[in-house]
Amino acid sequence: MKVARTIKSVRQLVIAARGNGEKIGLVPTMGALHEGHRSLIMRSVKAGNFTVVSVFVNPTQFGPREDFNKYPRPIRDDLKICRDTGVNVVFVPTAKEIYSGGTVTWVEVEKMSKPMCGQFRPGHFRGVATVCAKLFNIVQPDVAYFGQKDAQQAAIIKRMVADLNFPLKIVVCPTVRAADGLALSSRNRYLSTQQRRDATCIYRSLAAAREMIKAGVKAPKTIAGRMRKILEKAGSLTGVDYISVVNPDTLEEMKHVEGKVLIAVAARIGSTRLIDNLIVDADRR
Amino acid sequence: MKVARTIKSVRQLVIAARGNGEKIGLVPTMGALHEGHRSLIMRSVKAGNFTVVSVFVNPTQFGPREDFNKYPRPIRDDLKICRDTGVNVVFVPTAKEIYSGGTVTWVEVEKMSKPMCGQFRPGHFRGVATVCAKLFNIVQPDVAYFGQKDAQQAAIIKRMVADLNFPLKIVVCPTVRAADGLALSSRNRYLSTQQRRDATCIYRSLAAAREMIKAGVKAPKTIAGRMRKILEKAGSLTGVDYISVVNPDTLEEMKHVEGKVLIAVAARIGSTRLIDNLIVDADRR
Repeated sequence: MKVARTIKSVRQLVIAARGNGEKIGLVPTMGALHEGHRSLIMRSVKAGNFTVVSVFVNPTQFGPREDFNKYPRPIRDDLKICRDTGVNVVFVPTAKEIYSGGTVTWVEVEKMSKPMCGQFRPGHFRGVATVCAKLFNIVQPDVAYFGQKDAQQAAIIKRMVADLNFPLKIVVCPTVRAADGLALSSRNRYLSTQQRRDATCIYRSLAAAREMIKAGVKAPKTIAGRMRKILEKAGSLTGVDYISVVNPDTLEEMKHVEGKVLIAVAARIGSTRLIDNLIVDADRR
Repeated sequence: MKVARTIKSVRQLVIAARGNGEKIGLVPTMGALHEGHRSLIMRSVKAGNFTVVSVFVNPTQFGPREDFNKYPRPIRDDLKICRDTGVNVVFVPTAKEIYSGGTVTWVEVEKMSKPMCGQFRPGHFRGVATVCAKLFNIVQPDVAYFGQKDAQQAAIIKRMVADLNFPLKIVVCPTVRAADGLALSSRNRYLSTQQRRDATCIYRSLAAAREMIKAGVKAPKTIAGRMRKILEKAGSLTGVDYISVVNPDTLEEMKHVEGKVLIAVAARIGSTRLIDNLIVDADRR
């Protein structure tokens, strides 16, 4: 496994691999890798790709009062996970390498960046789309892997790739959960023991929504109301940013549940903001 | 020479050429090709590139009251010029092929899109940057050629390529002029005989600016004042959108002329809006 710290060196490694007839798989991450990331990496490795994992805590997707500075950066553990899973190249650039001259160019995926997390994190998805466009141009992968846990991000990146004709395929992999249902997240490590216990309210609310939809409930308000009650029973809950019932591709709010539905939640447990979601097919009971 | 009308077909042709070890040169145009375009094409052909010319009147870079509908589309003449200059592929997509699902994704090069033409054509450079990003991803050229005549566009595209790490080189070629100095433009064909004669005021104003700078004049106001007088002597002049004295790379206004200076003009002759510019090195007299 090679560790590349510059754009030039990761490009050289990728060009050499492509010269050997290999397909390139990219797993863009902010590090602090967990089983969710590992599942993305394994998907790429198992597909036989020359697999590049980028580890970059992207400053442009954090707001001024967000956790950029305290975001975990356990780079040794990350490298070990990459080595153990058969990654070919880990790309670990500095912020200066990525944003050398400061950037004045932004990729904006309008409409889809507005609702849900976009309401609470202005500029976040602009930062995400821009850094992904950069990583796609730097690594030039044939396939890039994202997790369904970040449903809005995955939908936005898929749309960006389609709209800007990036010559690559986006694969979205299922959310990996702890035994009690909590979606794995690098931010889970901020939780105290009690908070960790309470945090299962998020998955429980989603599971309840799924049951309601499967039972034939059609009104998003009814579903969201029930979910909110489940969330509010958790003692460590300090706020619900949103409960959304939307089209999984366009993120448009549904007035009436039908077909595939994305149920998404963002809630704060103590000072930690967690997100999770489920896609439910209302037509398949 | 092949004519490709779909993204899929142009990609196939480019991939085959690349498989034969060829370098790909892209000349993005809106058609109505003249000697200026021909010089860009020749530059690519002479460099030994597999040369792709795109001919696409991009709707997203026209404002609602601009000349999108009347913009000339002499596609037969264009194809002849391409054939005569040794182009390998002409890519002639429909607007539907390029913007199939409608686009919600935009590439914005902030700051540099604001001054000069940006003031008078809101959204223009967002449309230009977005369609160029798409064409770069569709054709995946090693080099793309732009004309210095559209100085702001060239500076913005260079910046976009640097900021988003597009894996290609931008070559900016000199403005091609008629014997009397008028910069060639597809819009020159809108001019009446009298207007065509008067239109030389633009180049004459730029030449006067160059002389002043070479003579040691340092104040942009003095230069612009003299240029405006020259322009206003032309009977067909109906307005001066701007006279700008800026840094050629950043497009920031200069307070004091030094080093390389971009002198740029946009003026209306009758109802036709024309632009032109010169880069002058104030340190080389």
